[in-house]
Amino acid sequence: MSVHTVMSARELRMAARRGVWTGNTAGHCPEALIANVVILPADVGLDFAAFCLRNPRSCPLIEILPAGDPEPRLSCPGGDIRTDLARYRVIRRGGDPQVLSDITELWQPDFVTFVLGCSATFERAMAEAGVSMRFHQGGGHAPTYITQVPTFPAGAFRGTMVVSMRPILAAQLPLVFEISARYPHAHGVPVHVGDPARLGIDLARPDYGRPVEITPDEVPVYWACGVTGQVAAESAGLALMITHDPGAMLATDLPREAVRTGIW
Amino acid sequence: MSVHTVMSARELRMAARRGVWTGNTAGHCPEALIANVVILPADVGLDFAAFCLRNPRSCPLIEILPAGDPEPRLSCPGGDIRTDLARYRVIRRGGDPQVLSDITELWQPDFVTFVLGCSATFERAMAEAGVSMRFHQGGGHAPTYITQVPTFPAGAFRGTMVVSMRPILAAQLPLVFEISARYPHAHGVPVHVGDPARLGIDLARPDYGRPVEITPDEVPVYWACGVTGQVAAESAGLALMITHDPGAMLATDLPREAVRTGIW
Repeated sequence: MSVHTVMSARELRMAARRGVWTGNTAGHCPEALIANVVILPADVGLDFAAFCLRNPRSCPLIEILPAGDPEPRLSCPGGDIRTDLARYRVIRRGGDPQVLSDITELWQPDFVTFVLGCSATFERAMAEAGVSMRFHQGGGHAPTYITQVPTFPAGAFRGTMVVSMRPILAAQLPLVFEISARYPHAHGVPVHVGDPARLGIDLARPDYGRPVEITPDEVPVYWACGVTGQVAAESAGLALMITHDPGAMLATDLPREAVRTGIW
Repeated sequence: MSVHTVMSARELRMAARRGVWTGNTAGHCPEALIANVVILPADVGLDFAAFCLRNPRSCPLIEILPAGDPEPRLSCPGGDIRTDLARYRVIRRGGDPQVLSDITELWQPDFVTFVLGCSATFERAMAEAGVSMRFHQGGGHAPTYITQVPTFPAGAFRGTMVVSMRPILAAQLPLVFEISARYPHAHGVPVHVGDPARLGIDLARPDYGRPVEITPDEVPVYWACGVTGQVAAESAGLALMITHDPGAMLATDLPREAVRTGIW
């Protein structure tokens, strides 16, 4: 396993805000709920919320920030979603993304921010339980695939499910299901184990990231992935969408184990 | 325990649609996820979604129907939210509610429907486990109280938490927590046990329903209640809000145990 600097979520956000931190998020805040971020114009916001609720394994909603409000008051009190990610992706009309370290100058009063649970949240719990996650050894990410499995549409949002794949020792499968079941707010249990053809994908050709070898004592295990929401948003032909750049997720102040906090 | 006619959720919805069923929902569809319903104009919909996510024990979101769409495609495929509840409450500018059996003539293309988990979902599981719920013996509902505990605001939505109270045998408290913890999508574990003064309420004076006696071997147990969302909507001074009439919740086709279904 690669060595990560451990810091609080707030420390990581403040370093990103100052421009000092430009790296990835996973592994650095092992106690924090880690989140994907999608920012959209308000006129399509309700449809996107409807899409997320109908595809909760892919898009587990943690918080919605009302239009124009940049502070994730529940998940990152005092935070600013315009500055607190290390890297942003700005996508206009589905074109090539522009990567920025700050989106303050792009911010509009009708921007609605969605904070969605991310599987980086449970990777530390897996490691603590002794689950081997080999692809971390090189500091990389799980390879990610656009499947042929349809999502449940809502309004203009539709498309197929995106999954991440991690090779898991067959003997550790029960443990992996047991641990990931505790994190429904971070994609939860795997959506499939084994044959990639059932998902309509080729493991040698990820859509994001690099392929990972699977040894004879391992099986490929697939989790629903938050990129599902981005693919649906792109297929909706939106004029503008801003997301976190892959790897540069939001580190929240919520504990990794529990999201149903709010006041209670 | 009172005797309930058992039917499928679809049968209950169709009977309500035909105007044959005008009664309450709890107890009649013991396997179904039972849901509260809130219908709002789209211009405040995103703020209400944000409010629900920030107060997930009170307002656990199951599904949002995009503007103008009356079919709960995830929770009640083939259903029609304009006809499939036995009774609706229509509230205009916070005034006295009007009770209707059908809202087809009121329906507008900008109406957004929220389907929220309800504690009636786990009451059957409690009974199966041998938990005594005395207030059911007369066919009544748990009394409900507007507390002094603030909610987490979002946009124009704010207010205090509403709770339902059930007297529970002290010896059954662990069982009650264990079972209700399986239903985070239906208010989950209680928010408080014991002294009502900590919530700023008087058990003899419910805001909805009738008071229930607590015997010496029982303790009062409080759950967050979906009426919290209605109180927040009323305080926002909305021109129009439509909800289910108390007791006449939506019986969904989702299983009571699991909501994170969608396609997967």
